[in-house]
Amino acid sequence: MSRYQRHVFVCINERPAGHPKGCCLEKGSAVIRDTLKAELKKRGLAGIVRANNSGCLDACAFGPSMVIYPEGIWYGGVKKEDVPEIVEQTILQGRVITRLLIRDPRYEPAELQHRPLDVSQAKVERTGKTQ
Amino acid sequence: MSRYQRHVFVCINERPAGHPKGCCLEKGSAVIRDTLKAELKKRGLAGIVRANNSGCLDACAFGPSMVIYPEGIWYGGVKKEDVPEIVEQTILQGRVITRLLIRDPRYEPAELQHRPLDVSQAKVERTGKTQ
Repeated sequence: MSRYQRHVFVCINERPAGHPKGCCLEKGSAVIRDTLKAELKKRGLAGIVRANNSGCLDACAFGPSMVIYPEGIWYGGVKKEDVPEIVEQTILQGRVITRLLIRDPRYEPAELQHRPLDVSQAKVERTGKTQ
Repeated sequence: MSRYQRHVFVCINERPAGHPKGCCLEKGSAVIRDTLKAELKKRGLAGIVRANNSGCLDACAFGPSMVIYPEGIWYGGVKKEDVPEIVEQTILQGRVITRLLIRDPRYEPAELQHRPLDVSQAKVERTGKTQ
């Protein structure tokens, strides 16, 4: 088991206004990151799942974008309202939300297998010391 | 196959000077990120491997820190001079560099199996259009 059972990276790259590629930050990715972090904390998952800012994921056209590892699940056009479903379905249950997948074959996840989170680890993290 | 065969996140989190945890940025992580990006580009791997900035990976004590997915390989105390070896051994050959692993059982990689990169994909990326 690596440090986190699932590790989410939310692109918060910013480009100058009017840039032809656009950028995830102007599309609202900071709110998505904040909502995701709050949702993980609320559910006691912060020790076994982590949400991080990332630099440009090169999926600008599909933003706001995120990628979830280790599966390599790429979601695009994410809205704040999608976050609880992402946590419940993808992070906890290991299920892909098809409508959020980036519509480009390069971003298709390698595995769509159902691998739920081992939440027993969350209790260890919550009662143990973390650095 | 997900978008990238390997995806490296280099923590560039910054904390105020004197913070007890320290931070990866003050330990030189920006140079490591730049060196890594240049090395990937030089080897023509930019289309199949990506290096990104990330926010705090919560491995501050071990910084400069990075994590390589999908394997979830966590390296700490990385120096600029380690970067060519990381690209050659871990990114290309799929081999863990033991001396760079974060010395904490929570960060041990789940799999140490040898999985080389499929560099045939690099040629496709390099001749094709990417967004």
